Amino acid sequence: MNKEDIESYRLLYSKELEESVVPFWQKFSIDKEYGGYYSCIERDGTVFDTDKFLWMQGRELWGFSKVYNRVKKDPAWLEAAKGGAEFIKEHGRAPNGDYYFALDRQGKPLVQPYNIFSDCFCAAGYAEYYRASGEEWAKKLALEGYRRIQERKLNPKGIWTKQITQNRPIKAMAMPMIQLWLAEEFTGLIPDGELEPIEKAGVDQVLHLHVDRNEHVVFERMYADGTHPDCMEGRLLTPGHALETLWLILDYAQKHGDRAMIDELCEIMLWVIDRGWDEKYGGIFYYQDFKNFPTEKLESHMKLWWVHVEALMAFLLAYKLTGKEIYEEWFRRIHDWTWARFPDHVFGEWYGYLDQNGEPTFTQKGGKWKGFFHVPRALMNCSAWLGEMEKSCGPDGRYRA
Amino acid sequence: MNKEDIESYRLLYSKELEESVVPFWQKFSIDKEYGGYYSCIERDGTVFDTDKFLWMQGRELWGFSKVYNRVKKDPAWLEAAKGGAEFIKEHGRAPNGDYYFALDRQGKPLVQPYNIFSDCFCAAGYAEYYRASGEEWAKKLALEGYRRIQERKLNPKGIWTKQITQNRPIKAMAMPMIQLWLAEEFTGLIPDGELEPIEKAGVDQVLHLHVDRNEHVVFERMYADGTHPDCMEGRLLTPGHALETLWLILDYAQKHGDRAMIDELCEIMLWVIDRGWDEKYGGIFYYQDFKNFPTEKLESHMKLWWVHVEALMAFLLAYKLTGKEIYEEWFRRIHDWTWARFPDHVFGEWYGYLDQNGEPTFTQKGGKWKGFFHVPRALMNCSAWLGEMEKSCGPDGRYRA
Repeated sequence: MNKEDIESYRLLYSKELEESVVPFWQKFSIDKEYGGYYSCIERDGTVFDTDKFLWMQGRELWGFSKVYNRVKKDPAWLEAAKGGAEFIKEHGRAPNGDYYFALDRQGKPLVQPYNIFSDCFCAAGYAEYYRASGEEWAKKLALEGYRRIQERKLNPKGIWTKQITQNRPIKAMAMPMIQLWLAEEFTGLIPDGELEPIEKAGVDQVLHLHVDRNEHVVFERMYADGTHPDCMEGRLLTPGHALETLWLILDYAQKHGDRAMIDELCEIMLWVIDRGWDEKYGGIFYYQDFKNFPTEKLESHMKLWWVHVEALMAFLLAYKLTGKEIYEEWFRRIHDWTWARFPDHVFGEWYGYLDQNGEPTFTQKGGKWKGFFHVPRALMNCSAWLGEMEKSCGPDGRYRA
Repeated sequence: MNKEDIESYRLLYSKELEESVVPFWQKFSIDKEYGGYYSCIERDGTVFDTDKFLWMQGRELWGFSKVYNRVKKDPAWLEAAKGGAEFIKEHGRAPNGDYYFALDRQGKPLVQPYNIFSDCFCAAGYAEYYRASGEEWAKKLALEGYRRIQERKLNPKGIWTKQITQNRPIKAMAMPMIQLWLAEEFTGLIPDGELEPIEKAGVDQVLHLHVDRNEHVVFERMYADGTHPDCMEGRLLTPGHALETLWLILDYAQKHGDRAMIDELCEIMLWVIDRGWDEKYGGIFYYQDFKNFPTEKLESHMKLWWVHVEALMAFLLAYKLTGKEIYEEWFRRIHDWTWARFPDHVFGEWYGYLDQNGEPTFTQKGGKWKGFFHVPRALMNCSAWLGEMEKSCGPDGRYRA
């Protein structure tokens, strides 16, 4: 890429964040009466369900705190974060200290705390809100949350575990992935000496268990001995998860200056995208079966927003760190497909759910699983990385890694 | 319809059952080594996952026993039933007497008994197998299963319940529906005096709670006072479930000679199909939102096999009982759309999962949720009903209800 291209991408990504995405959530998602955030929001901003899902509450708290800390000290953004932080503090936790999965609009619990990712997003949200606000109670809740996650990590669903794990002792990639993200988010709040072994264990599990170097594939679920059961759950591939995990590790490798790891991670990304890209309609599949059998997920062929923005981060960072053309090409291809279909130029924000050929199946901007998180995170990271790349262009205007 | 049409439908439905559907499952689903049934079977018969899901085990036991009892005393069908019955007896139940959700091929439990429908299908399977085989142990297991379901029915998920029901005390339609089916299946095994109040309670709940006569809609989930929460789960409509429930009640009304109930049920079916039919591509939607907001189900626009065969039974029975043209028209329209897309004329059996415009998204004949159940049940019932209709044609050859 040359400097003009890099600058033009950067402006696009940062304008989209500040002029389309953040304003949409600011305008439509804030519950001024009860606190917290609506996340079920139709294309035009209409709220179609006022239930409050803790994944979405924690993520939006994180999002508003993060844009405040990284993009602009807009007091309205801090205010938006505060409304979420106080609602979660008031209503989010069950008596045992774990975070519920869902509350009603007023904060009464609707779904038990069976899902540790609620805790992860709320903890990271408090950590970032503490950085934004300086509120000591937010720091305390962040640290309590982080340490409780570490206690629960080997048995994250606890009494809600339906799998009889002794008969199929599968290790999933979700926990190491979230640990990598949490370690990054808690840097400065938790001593490095405590974070580093957790981070390293996550990296090791992914690179030595989930990445299969013979088959050139990243498996979601593995046995500890490096094999995987030859059944639907064992063969399941999730290209979006794989790419999200890979860029998180790539960021880790960059910080540790580990050139060999960087090169390997970037090559693994190519395996994932070669298999995950839909040659017929473009875009990246949601789920795949390693042997091309049917998956158990009816939505496997759909194109989801988060998959595509995670892929954009993966290939932009790969290009930034290696300067190799193949990563630039993939970044441009994914960028073109994504930006032509997901952003809504009328009402702002992005569609979430496209069918295989790229048409929205529903037009909502948020729901039970889509909120203020993947899109702003990607827009923030990409524009920051592009900004750094601009500064590394040579006298000929070409980017040099 | 005239007599020739009725006969030609009858021959089509019964030939499909005996020459395509039953042989497929007989050939590919029987685990001769460990007993029980494979249900994850690709288009051509390839087994792609050997896990054994108790819904599918119980349903296939029911299916082979039923075709043996109703269609033909083929000893191979009884043998197929026996292999399932003994596997379930050996491995199906957890120490507390509830049926697991999933086992591995050998019968080791993989997923805890969180789902009461496993118990329902296994109990009905044993009941029908007892009728086929005369095995007293099967009768005993059937009765134990039925009575355990009645003990659990108010809290069917038990310790696995994630919903905090006191804060949103929703009543779902699934339990009354399955009770109606079980009452039919247990007739003759359980005293009528015990079955009738359970059946009547199911009918009452559906007709007085889930059917909304002002809005002309059948809701899946209601409050006891006849309202429903204005959120995704409260507004969810499932046309296939509604039609399945309605034909089960229609059968009940027929047996009780309740003309007013028959007429009302048939009218309600029209509300469901008018809303549930896809005017653009044809076929019946999987899920809908009462206010046309997005549902939380990504697969809402898909066309599923079971929805369509339940609809065929609903409208054929409505036509049989009323003789009204509108039900004949809907039966023919659903028949034409269904039979043009779901049956596989090369390898036999039916596809399960079509996208909105009617193309298979995956081509498997069975999986975790599709087995030997809805298609054979519909083919058996429809050909039986058509056979009765042939005998009720007037001297002009026209059918008279």
